[in-house]
Amino acid sequence: MPAPLTIGFDADDTLWHNESIFEDVHQRYRSLLARYHEAAVVDRTLLATEKRNLELYGYGIKGFTLSAIETAIELTGGRISADEIRQLIALGRDMLEHPVRLLDGVPETLAAIAGQHRLMVITKGDLRDQERKLAKSGLAGHFPRVEIVSEKDTPTYTTLFRRHQIAPESFLMVGNSLKSDILPVLELGGAGVHVPYHLTWAHEQVDEPPPLPGRLFRLRTIRELPGLLGSLPP
Amino acid sequence: MPAPLTIGFDADDTLWHNESIFEDVHQRYRSLLARYHEAAVVDRTLLATEKRNLELYGYGIKGFTLSAIETAIELTGGRISADEIRQLIALGRDMLEHPVRLLDGVPETLAAIAGQHRLMVITKGDLRDQERKLAKSGLAGHFPRVEIVSEKDTPTYTTLFRRHQIAPESFLMVGNSLKSDILPVLELGGAGVHVPYHLTWAHEQVDEPPPLPGRLFRLRTIRELPGLLGSLPP
Repeated sequence: MPAPLTIGFDADDTLWHNESIFEDVHQRYRSLLARYHEAAVVDRTLLATEKRNLELYGYGIKGFTLSAIETAIELTGGRISADEIRQLIALGRDMLEHPVRLLDGVPETLAAIAGQHRLMVITKGDLRDQERKLAKSGLAGHFPRVEIVSEKDTPTYTTLFRRHQIAPESFLMVGNSLKSDILPVLELGGAGVHVPYHLTWAHEQVDEPPPLPGRLFRLRTIRELPGLLGSLPP
Repeated sequence: MPAPLTIGFDADDTLWHNESIFEDVHQRYRSLLARYHEAAVVDRTLLATEKRNLELYGYGIKGFTLSAIETAIELTGGRISADEIRQLIALGRDMLEHPVRLLDGVPETLAAIAGQHRLMVITKGDLRDQERKLAKSGLAGHFPRVEIVSEKDTPTYTTLFRRHQIAPESFLMVGNSLKSDILPVLELGGAGVHVPYHLTWAHEQVDEPPPLPGRLFRLRTIRELPGLLGSLPP
């Protein structure tokens, strides 16, 4: 690939932990509703509400909180108390105020490659929440360009390539979601570096794509990224 | 001002009606809580909650809905029913699904000036909601550049000027909010065209700035914009 590359980084579960926070919240949510339904029913119903509302709410914690309230009312047949709903609002607030915990190796990796390549963040979610996390992360200085988008699909990447004058063959996207970070970029002729996180939100789960040597890579940790970049043919 | 200008347009209450939708919603909200409190108390408490949550939630309908639920629980001392909270969620959903009603004269005005100047939208709010409204508006074709931001202040405009290589002296911002559309742009050396809407959200209310001939203009309607642009010295 022709250097310097533009390297896009997903943020949630690629630069910092996110799904693990949702996992904690789901646990608290199940406890709150435990006297009405078993965990599997709660999980399934919440996911269905989230998917149904995704087109309207988009990604992010505020939409999640509204879906969690809606689901709780539905699952309790309206018997949930105002105080329990207040707890759900507090749950959402806790998520928004959660400290940013970087994944292992992230600052060193970014520092190692920032000199040779152009780095950018491409993430989806609530605008203000993502901005706040980037600011809290201490990583903003590595990213002259930050794009917070409502969906990460081929039309979005096409728009970003045009806006930033990026040639797909010199673009590489690093992320934990095959669906949002890898497949659309491969489709447009770029390269993808898949770094799985130990948890994947059900909505992001897709089948593994077939091997695509030289354009699709899988790393166990972001620490392996400088080595991979060094090994790419010019 | 040196032509071609880059002309930024605010969206809510500049291109399409927004505050009037919130006004309807406030009316329904007051009715819902009427048996607990008089309208003035409801309004005051909701605004206080919104302001308190603004840093965390940012602008937009999802944050408004969460603040409305929180306020309702507070104002009823927890006596609000799950069904009433469901109505509040539906209220938020109605706002998100509301048809886009353009302000008078908007399409003709944009069509009249798009050939000579570079037009962009600069708006704040929920990412997906603003994108949806622009798509629904039928106006997207006039705006090669769209920026949905979390706050419209001098740091934001500075970033946008840099990103789009805009010289402030060739930038003119059209909007209904002195606070968000006009004052920061004037401060950076650009020009502002204030087109007041008949309603202003309390949070956006600021004092009138002193006259600034040649850089601060006030129009009664956006229909007067082509005439103003024609009258500017080159």
